[in-house]
Amino acid sequence: MSADRQALIALAHCAEPGDAALGRLVAERGATAVLAMVAAGTSGLAHGEGLAARLAASAATSADAAAERIGARIVTRCDREWPTQLDALSHHVPLALWVSGAADLRLLALRCVAIVGARACTVYGEEIARSWAADLAADRWCIVSGGAYGIDAAAHRGALAAGGATICVLAGGVDVPYPRGHDALISRVVDDGLVLSEVPVGEGVRRQRFLSRNRLIAALSRATVVVEAAERSGTTATARVAAELNRPVLAVPGPVNSVASTGCHRMIRDGRALLVSSACEVAELIDLTSSARRSDIPTQGADPDRAVWDSLGSRERRVLDALPARAPADLGMIVLRCGIDGRGVLAALGLLESRGLVQPAGDGWRRGRR
Amino acid sequence: MSADRQALIALAHCAEPGDAALGRLVAERGATAVLAMVAAGTSGLAHGEGLAARLAASAATSADAAAERIGARIVTRCDREWPTQLDALSHHVPLALWVSGAADLRLLALRCVAIVGARACTVYGEEIARSWAADLAADRWCIVSGGAYGIDAAAHRGALAAGGATICVLAGGVDVPYPRGHDALISRVVDDGLVLSEVPVGEGVRRQRFLSRNRLIAALSRATVVVEAAERSGTTATARVAAELNRPVLAVPGPVNSVASTGCHRMIRDGRALLVSSACEVAELIDLTSSARRSDIPTQGADPDRAVWDSLGSRERRVLDALPARAPADLGMIVLRCGIDGRGVLAALGLLESRGLVQPAGDGWRRGRR
Repeated sequence: MSADRQALIALAHCAEPGDAALGRLVAERGATAVLAMVAAGTSGLAHGEGLAARLAASAATSADAAAERIGARIVTRCDREWPTQLDALSHHVPLALWVSGAADLRLLALRCVAIVGARACTVYGEEIARSWAADLAADRWCIVSGGAYGIDAAAHRGALAAGGATICVLAGGVDVPYPRGHDALISRVVDDGLVLSEVPVGEGVRRQRFLSRNRLIAALSRATVVVEAAERSGTTATARVAAELNRPVLAVPGPVNSVASTGCHRMIRDGRALLVSSACEVAELIDLTSSARRSDIPTQGADPDRAVWDSLGSRERRVLDALPARAPADLGMIVLRCGIDGRGVLAALGLLESRGLVQPAGDGWRRGRR
Repeated sequence: MSADRQALIALAHCAEPGDAALGRLVAERGATAVLAMVAAGTSGLAHGEGLAARLAASAATSADAAAERIGARIVTRCDREWPTQLDALSHHVPLALWVSGAADLRLLALRCVAIVGARACTVYGEEIARSWAADLAADRWCIVSGGAYGIDAAAHRGALAAGGATICVLAGGVDVPYPRGHDALISRVVDDGLVLSEVPVGEGVRRQRFLSRNRLIAALSRATVVVEAAERSGTTATARVAAELNRPVLAVPGPVNSVASTGCHRMIRDGRALLVSSACEVAELIDLTSSARRSDIPTQGADPDRAVWDSLGSRERRVLDALPARAPADLGMIVLRCGIDGRGVLAALGLLESRGLVQPAGDGWRRGRR
């Protein structure tokens, strides 16, 4: 058991989730050194005193045993089960994860899609979340969501009913099911999937912890599907994190007279989310992105000559790479293949077109000069 | 009564709506000369023989009298009532219009918005069409649509109920109400608005005439709102014409499990339409576009110096013009102010950004270098 692992767990006991100042220091100096600095009051962090006080009061040294007593385990980046997707969070990466459930986190995280949305959802939204989660689970996708009423619960239930696995990310400790009414649901998730948290066992929920939790949902998933959301809600915050991580954000439209769909409509209209209308579309779009990442990037530079390629910005390179060798591609496909939002893609296409590297073709674009 | 006017009316009797080859010839040589060429069999048009045969059989010389007998009139571009909006159709501009109703076409056409959609619509679509048409009519907008069942009829009914005017564009003659079941509705439109057609009185409907008719609906209107549409339908064709004329295309989302909304969702996703969720938004978006056209374009060149301005393409100039002097604007606003689709706007912004003329600002852009 490495010293770094113990240090990460100890720091997770004193820091609040997503503490970027501490995260930056850990990245620079290593967890063991930072833990010593925090304990000695020499971390130089503005909140160093608070961290030290919490550290002194914590039961970090017996954390593994405490987790084990409730059937959970602690996973840090020193552990084999660590899902490397989370590293994209950079300084906001969780220090440690408390994990409860039979499944392997690293394996489940290979094929995750988040389904998120409002607690105050409609029957329509609940039905979409349930049925799309079931369809995606049947297609071997693991569904990631929170543990809230509404869309979160419907997504878990749909996937579990289809015999799939889900990951439920909690804002409090994994032994503190919240809301209370979801005790049974969360137990079922533990049986067939995983319950995760980045706060120690016994810790309660706090407002800020819900927002921090949302970034884990986005970061674990290859894409985030927003089923129903009010404007400026926790859900739109999750979508923002996904966009920052260059993961596709997909939103489900609904009736315009349904308040529950206003956030989705706004994100679609502003180009922050792509409209999706079926689970099948969700899977296709993710597969497109992934195959672009896996197989297309090695062909980079094959088409324009080296000097031209070298003169391009990274955004333009990624967009050019996302275009098939011969066939045209439409905007949606390019967005998903290169993982850049529509606005960035179009700006890049404008530059590429002005250099004769792409040309409009029907409703889309293709490589080469007109 | 000018010879050109009589020639246009005569040609309208022998040509099918939207005959671009004939339209081009008329634009080059004038209607009177082209009429003589058609009559003499020297037009050089591939279908010249067919035109000549139809001309010989037509009752074009008594067309005004025939129209008057059914309470209609003929309006050509030689007439004061001609709506100049239609000139944007270029070679596809109608040769003549048969008009029935008390209102003045030129005046009504100053403030028109098209509301179009499927015949096979849902209760949801019908209610949106009816209530948005009523709201827009109360705001002094004239609603333009076809005479079909479903969305068309709901839009007319909503506007009329609110005391507004509508323009109903028919595929057959203005005295040939189609479908039959809309006799009463079309009579009400004649009372409070206008019924239009580009085929002579007595002419029946044909498949191709519905498609040609759709271009008039789009060309008369400052924006086209698609309420419900199947993929690849007449409605999406109307939207395509509007886009080609640089008029905003707005689409209403609906439940994803409603087949009637698939065309709208597709257009939104592909960036061919902007998502709108209320009548109020429609009016705001059109007003934005129009105020951009009226008041902003004279300021062109005020910001970048003359040489820079002259070096820009027309698309880049229009986009730059659409940006407010000081405040940032988001994509939707720019699209509507400059009347160029989102894809074109973003390509232009990419070029303008590379030249330091615009910079990203929050969710949008502003003028000037970072």
